[in-house]
Amino acid sequence: MQPIDCGRHNRFLRALRREPVDTTPVWVMRQAGRYLPEYRATRQRAGSFMNLCRTPELACEVTMQPLERFELDAAILFSDILTIPDAMGLGLDFVEGEGPRFAKSVRTPEDIDALGIPDPEDDLGYVPAAVKLIRRELGGKVPLIGFAGSPWTLACYMAEGGPTERFSHIKKLMWDEPGALHRLIDKLTEAVKRYLEAQIRAGAQAVMIFDSWGGVLAPADYHEFSMKNLRALAQGIDRGPENVPVIVFSRGANEHLGALADIGADALGLDWTVSLGEARRRTGGKVALQGNLDPAALYASPASLRREVDLVIREYGRGPGHVFNLGHGITPDVNPDQMSVLVDAVHAFGRGATELA
Amino acid sequence: MQPIDCGRHNRFLRALRREPVDTTPVWVMRQAGRYLPEYRATRQRAGSFMNLCRTPELACEVTMQPLERFELDAAILFSDILTIPDAMGLGLDFVEGEGPRFAKSVRTPEDIDALGIPDPEDDLGYVPAAVKLIRRELGGKVPLIGFAGSPWTLACYMAEGGPTERFSHIKKLMWDEPGALHRLIDKLTEAVKRYLEAQIRAGAQAVMIFDSWGGVLAPADYHEFSMKNLRALAQGIDRGPENVPVIVFSRGANEHLGALADIGADALGLDWTVSLGEARRRTGGKVALQGNLDPAALYASPASLRREVDLVIREYGRGPGHVFNLGHGITPDVNPDQMSVLVDAVHAFGRGATELA
Repeated sequence: MQPIDCGRHNRFLRALRREPVDTTPVWVMRQAGRYLPEYRATRQRAGSFMNLCRTPELACEVTMQPLERFELDAAILFSDILTIPDAMGLGLDFVEGEGPRFAKSVRTPEDIDALGIPDPEDDLGYVPAAVKLIRRELGGKVPLIGFAGSPWTLACYMAEGGPTERFSHIKKLMWDEPGALHRLIDKLTEAVKRYLEAQIRAGAQAVMIFDSWGGVLAPADYHEFSMKNLRALAQGIDRGPENVPVIVFSRGANEHLGALADIGADALGLDWTVSLGEARRRTGGKVALQGNLDPAALYASPASLRREVDLVIREYGRGPGHVFNLGHGITPDVNPDQMSVLVDAVHAFGRGATELA
Repeated sequence: MQPIDCGRHNRFLRALRREPVDTTPVWVMRQAGRYLPEYRATRQRAGSFMNLCRTPELACEVTMQPLERFELDAAILFSDILTIPDAMGLGLDFVEGEGPRFAKSVRTPEDIDALGIPDPEDDLGYVPAAVKLIRRELGGKVPLIGFAGSPWTLACYMAEGGPTERFSHIKKLMWDEPGALHRLIDKLTEAVKRYLEAQIRAGAQAVMIFDSWGGVLAPADYHEFSMKNLRALAQGIDRGPENVPVIVFSRGANEHLGALADIGADALGLDWTVSLGEARRRTGGKVALQGNLDPAALYASPASLRREVDLVIREYGRGPGHVFNLGHGITPDVNPDQMSVLVDAVHAFGRGATELA
């Protein structure tokens, strides 16, 4: 067998393209976050969460923190999916213990038609600036992932004005004013497209779209209000000269994996409620898969955690196309030492799985 | 076509047995609840939520309230799934705006082995007493549903001590002490069995098992820690001389509908993220299906609500075996008038769907 020209610098991008790798690459959603004491220190220095996002030097600092501790195979831009609605004039704020809140919400056709599409270089210039800074800081050690929220997910937050379990406003809009909701989602699709293209121009080497609320829709509505616009993005984004791969994570949408495999994304993110083997069958080898350890496994003993990592890798089975991740973001009360256990276990067990069959 | 001996008094039970009915029967999860001003008045008079559950006259009063307003086809016992852990000595309390809280939690093998199985007639005597009272009050107008939480779901609440998004304690137990968790779940299975049998002896004409947290498990864990014990209950409960039907609602477990169709339940509850047509294919006509309108449809206009009701009934298609319900409990800020719209629409549109093909 020929040795593969592979390592931390390109293992992740090769896996997204379903090319052979030396071992399974791993990164973790929210890897730069509250479970790290050094993150909490920077967050405090920043004053507010939005100030942390809006200051490229600070966003760069926290992006780098987990890479200094763990042998992760990718960095992900530190930011928030709600920067776009904020730039549309909704006035984003983070209330301690409550999550994001908008000063204004978007609930009527008039509200929707009054919205403009933000210019990412101008209205959101702090994001490409952070991307450039992080790329320089990374020095090619690992690739950098950019990201955005999906149009449907952004629309949910904009209609509800903050976190919700009921989705009463967005769904009222969907059923009573479907034309207006389509206009909102189409506007957001264009905004997300320009935003991700700006990140790619600034140096993002992969982009991920978080469809966090796709799973709250009935199947027909999912296709119409979430997946259609995920397809428009996966196929419409100018990926630049390096043909940057696109990862789509539509949470709670395992029902639709077969359809999602055909939207033009390079990889799909998965939560832990579907096995990787089953997901691989449903997606028929058309996409790479990213996931899907239950984040609660980080609360178990190191021995249990290693066993669960091994199970996820075995479920994927042999061959390329697997990026290891949690099925949801790492939780704030996890012991950071458990991340070392996880990352080392992925790389150790992944060597067997990624051997050319 | 022969007229069917059917109406509000037995439409629901006939549908659960997949027998022909005159129109689609309907009831709604949490139909006796906070969206009704008369419920809020009784709740206030009761002093506390647990006092409302523990006083058969008050539980009967609120059970009857929605039936006086709407042409519902079944009543459901007013109670809570956490009465069993409360009777095991965990000290249940409901904190306003926070939900249930236990004074004690169950997190170690020692905690588990110290638990006894409550005697439903003695430790939980207020529940069969309420069932008897409600049956008398109903006078045969519509059937009465009894219910319990699933063993896995009760174990989740007992380990976490209250509501959670992380499930850190129960999953730590699952991965680090699987033998102890099996002992807990087996003990709860026996407790739920005795509890539902007491409800059946007291007059419950159908019983429903709420596996509210089945969907937080990875597939292999779901089979081992949730579904195995749902099967034990569906097959093990003494259903009495009237062979009381068993409904299982395993929320978020649409991945497992094919397997769930074989556990011995008469009907499966469904949330709205799978279409009834697809669910019917997966369950192969082995069970009746109960669901599955998105509860947020009650926030839409009456015209939109009617259209969504019609869509759900059309998705099920022709033939018996459909009980209409929401895919989750009705939310407290819904206008009660919308329930009339829903119930009337189900009965109107259901006449077409239930015609013998």
